[in-house]
Amino acid sequence: MADKLTDIKEELALANRILAHEGVLDAFGHVSVRHPGDPGRYLLSRSRSPALIEPADILEYTLDSEPVRPPTAHLYAERVIHGCIYQARSDVTAVCHHHAPSVMPFVIAGKPIVPVFHLGAAIGEEPPFWDQQDEFGDTNLLVVKPEEGRSLARALAHHSVVLMNRHGATVVGNGLKELVSRSIFMCQNAEYQLRALTLGLVAPLPSGEIELAGAISRLANVVGRTWEYWSARVPGNKPTAAARAKRAKPAQPAKRRKARRR
Amino acid sequence: MADKLTDIKEELALANRILAHEGVLDAFGHVSVRHPGDPGRYLLSRSRSPALIEPADILEYTLDSEPVRPPTAHLYAERVIHGCIYQARSDVTAVCHHHAPSVMPFVIAGKPIVPVFHLGAAIGEEPPFWDQQDEFGDTNLLVVKPEEGRSLARALAHHSVVLMNRHGATVVGNGLKELVSRSIFMCQNAEYQLRALTLGLVAPLPSGEIELAGAISRLANVVGRTWEYWSARVPGNKPTAAARAKRAKPAQPAKRRKARRR
Amino acid sequence: MADKLTDIKEELALANRILAHEGVLDAFGHVSVRHPGDPGRYLLSRSRSPALIEPADILEYTLDSEPVRPPTAHLYAERVIHGCIYQARSDVTAVCHHHAPSVMPFVIAGKPIVPVFHLGAAIGEEPPFWDQQDEFGDTNLLVVKPEEGRSLARALAHHSVVLMNRHGATVVGNGLKELVSRSIFMCQNAEYQLRALTLGLVAPLPSGEIELAGAISRLANVVGRTWEYWSARVPGNKPTAAARAKRAKPAQPAKRRKARRR
Amino acid sequence: MADKLTDIKEELALANRILAHEGVLDAFGHVSVRHPGDPGRYLLSRSRSPALIEPADILEYTLDSEPVRPPTAHLYAERVIHGCIYQARSDVTAVCHHHAPSVMPFVIAGKPIVPVFHLGAAIGEEPPFWDQQDEFGDTNLLVVKPEEGRSLARALAHHSVVLMNRHGATVVGNGLKELVSRSIFMCQNAEYQLRALTLGLVAPLPSGEIELAGAISRLANVVGRTWEYWSARVPGNKPTAAARAKRAKPAQPAKRRKARRR
Repeated sequence: MADKLTDIKEELALANRILAHEGVLDAFGHVSVRHPGDPGRYLLSRSRSPALIEPADILEYTLDSEPVRPPTAHLYAERVIHGCIYQARSDVTAVCHHHAPSVMPFVIAGKPIVPVFHLGAAIGEEPPFWDQQDEFGDTNLLVVKPEEGRSLARALAHHSVVLMNRHGATVVGNGLKELVSRSIFMCQNAEYQLRALTLGLVAPLPSGEIELAGAISRLANVVGRTWEYWSARVPGNKPTAAARAKRAKPAQPAKRRKARRR
Repeated sequence: MADKLTDIKEELALANRILAHEGVLDAFGHVSVRHPGDPGRYLLSRSRSPALIEPADILEYTLDSEPVRPPTAHLYAERVIHGCIYQARSDVTAVCHHHAPSVMPFVIAGKPIVPVFHLGAAIGEEPPFWDQQDEFGDTNLLVVKPEEGRSLARALAHHSVVLMNRHGATVVGNGLKELVSRSIFMCQNAEYQLRALTLGLVAPLPSGEIELAGAISRLANVVGRTWEYWSARVPGNKPTAAARAKRAKPAQPAKRRKARRR
Repeated sequence: MADKLTDIKEELALANRILAHEGVLDAFGHVSVRHPGDPGRYLLSRSRSPALIEPADILEYTLDSEPVRPPTAHLYAERVIHGCIYQARSDVTAVCHHHAPSVMPFVIAGKPIVPVFHLGAAIGEEPPFWDQQDEFGDTNLLVVKPEEGRSLARALAHHSVVLMNRHGATVVGNGLKELVSRSIFMCQNAEYQLRALTLGLVAPLPSGEIELAGAISRLANVVGRTWEYWSARVPGNKPTAAARAKRAKPAQPAKRRKARRR
Repeated sequence: MADKLTDIKEELALANRILAHEGVLDAFGHVSVRHPGDPGRYLLSRSRSPALIEPADILEYTLDSEPVRPPTAHLYAERVIHGCIYQARSDVTAVCHHHAPSVMPFVIAGKPIVPVFHLGAAIGEEPPFWDQQDEFGDTNLLVVKPEEGRSLARALAHHSVVLMNRHGATVVGNGLKELVSRSIFMCQNAEYQLRALTLGLVAPLPSGEIELAGAISRLANVVGRTWEYWSARVPGNKPTAAARAKRAKPAQPAKRRKARRR
């Protein structure tokens, strides 16, 4: 477990840096994973901008968002977003909260983001909105109280993304790499959807395409290629010796590959 | 005082470089702070593009924008912006004048920038406009004369930002870090507001949210995280040994942190 | 042939990196060339993001998109795009499939990209659309089956570009450098066309201008200048000693150049 | 003269690199200066992308755009733009031809660029258009023939900028630094003008402001600050020892500077 925990902390720190470099996160935003050995715990960095996060910054929390060990640093004020979602969704093992620039116009105008290209199908049919004003009146829009986190988790329901009016968005995934892909593709989708509006009406993908294309980011071929690319783009990223050896010999043995039928 | 002056000059030079790197300043624009020991003086670089400013460039001025020591370099022609605002506003200890790309469309079209997301609330309800043409007729739009600076300060009044038609904007703050945050969040807000217009009508945050969210940038947690991030992004920024030691042991001692109630 | 194959693999790897750096390709997309010695074969990397591709990644395929040697790595699922086009178009010796951001709004809105400036004439009069839904109903929009690749090639017909609804585009060329130019100019053209719509109606170039300007990217002067520039921009690109020697003595001898008549 | 020629070639090479880095030039475009010792000659690089130009690339031409010494490299096909303008305008000592992205939407839609902020006044009241189609019918839109260059120069007339439909723009200046400033400010102006249109009607600066603000880029204070900044931004730019020494002791001696009256 110790090795597994070390690995997941390294991967989570890298995920933070990837999402910062790809423009999903900036000074703000955060990414967590459910503890690999205990579903009643999750891992999240101390309060630090994602681009700077190192494995040693990763802390362990209960699902009530209490730190397991006494903290020696500031904590993210909005960590209840993560804890409440892990409580509500047993299928979710990774969560990202962000204010990505391409998504902000939609949560400001209160207009839906819909999948408009194949990779954007990762967000599902139509992410729901959540407006903190509805249940809590005037606030500073930070999700800090447990009841606010629970309200957000209710709005998320079974979806992959919840849009937070005048604030940002929260993305969930089964697996950290799926979460990272979904977050990046969501931002690309939002960007293209907005720009396409200059050209005319924009329709979402048909439901059948959404269902099928939504699985693209889980194809083994795709996961390997994207993770390698996004990792390599992170400034100063030095892969572990183990990772480099693994990359030199990709997983698939010498099997003859025909152009695959679906 | 000498040490304090050295520190504030280093911080002001860094603030210039941060705002340049974050796209608020470019070849033009400038940042000043009120002298920490004498409210009748302020500190501002000699005429140099912000990205290149070093502590040795920082000069001391009277509130009449006269250099305290004989200058050996060009001075900013628009330094009266700073002096006149320090004269008019005893609560202001930092001032930034900029032509940030995301703000320019608004000061060109003469349309208001309003807070549209939580961090944008840092600009206040609705920054006023100031048009140099109104009092001074045709000019080259540079604020050079003391009477022009005083006119601008009158338009700023009690606000945090004043928009300058066909020119740019001036931002004030109580503290340099608050000023830097406000300037950066203002630019993000303007960018999102403009892009959201493609999607439909855009409403500002409700007044209650503006009041509460406007204080986010002053939360200790947030100040530390953002300053560390923006500083780290400045190319070639080498933190002082003191700052590095301070970062290694974040300020908060080992206190148990419950998810905080507001 | 061995030397020629080594050279073409180096050039193809570089073309991948150029197109990644110029924003045409990202985590996804791919570039191939027809085998210089055997028109029944083509060269395409194993499944890897273009920015990372090295000559050793380049594999050889039959036009049925079967790898010639047993693969030891994942292959691009959409390689049939390349094989089917090489089968249908004997004049084509290079193919690029991409999801370039500037093109995506058009394939999402289903609006044509037309040449709007001289370099954009490289795409021809008006690239056709291909919608996978028409022949194949709901799919994940990846072109994986041979029949899907053949359908795409039919839509491409004699054109230089085919737009793929809700997916991206495929570009062809006679020569790798022509393909790279065409891909980059296509993206610039799409970007300018979209932005010009804010200003009013946008008309394509007259047909006579399209025909003449379409040949610009093949002018010897232009090919040399652009390839040198795009190559130099690729991070970490170290030209071969042969290439450096060739650049030091450009091809044209000491001939007196008058301002040329057309 | 030899030293002066060496200096001007270094400055011209740097100007090319500055304009490339600031996004005015890319693979295409070029900058020239009139020969400092002979108004019947001008200096222009051999055909090479501006970002890569070194002093050794700079060649000397007659105003008929004939190279003075036998060339050993490709020449810019469109050099007649420079020669014809130097012939027509004795006040012009620097010329830049570009396809800058922010300007392209205007020359594609055929809509005027007007000064909308103080620095944009550098372009003058309203640059004229020139459409190669009018006199020459269908061409590839490259300005290659002397008669085409002369036609362009007639359209430029006494203006500072001429917009070239479906192609790009040409900018002139009295002095290389003025030309570089004008080119960069023109691009910023175009960008802001386009974006401001999303907000509503956009009016140009009043004529009196255009006249006064148009001189900003010539203020000694401004020239020094901008040139230092743009030079420093060029990757790998190593200032000569002479330039570094000059920068350490800025030109103005110890004179008391009062806030200046206009």
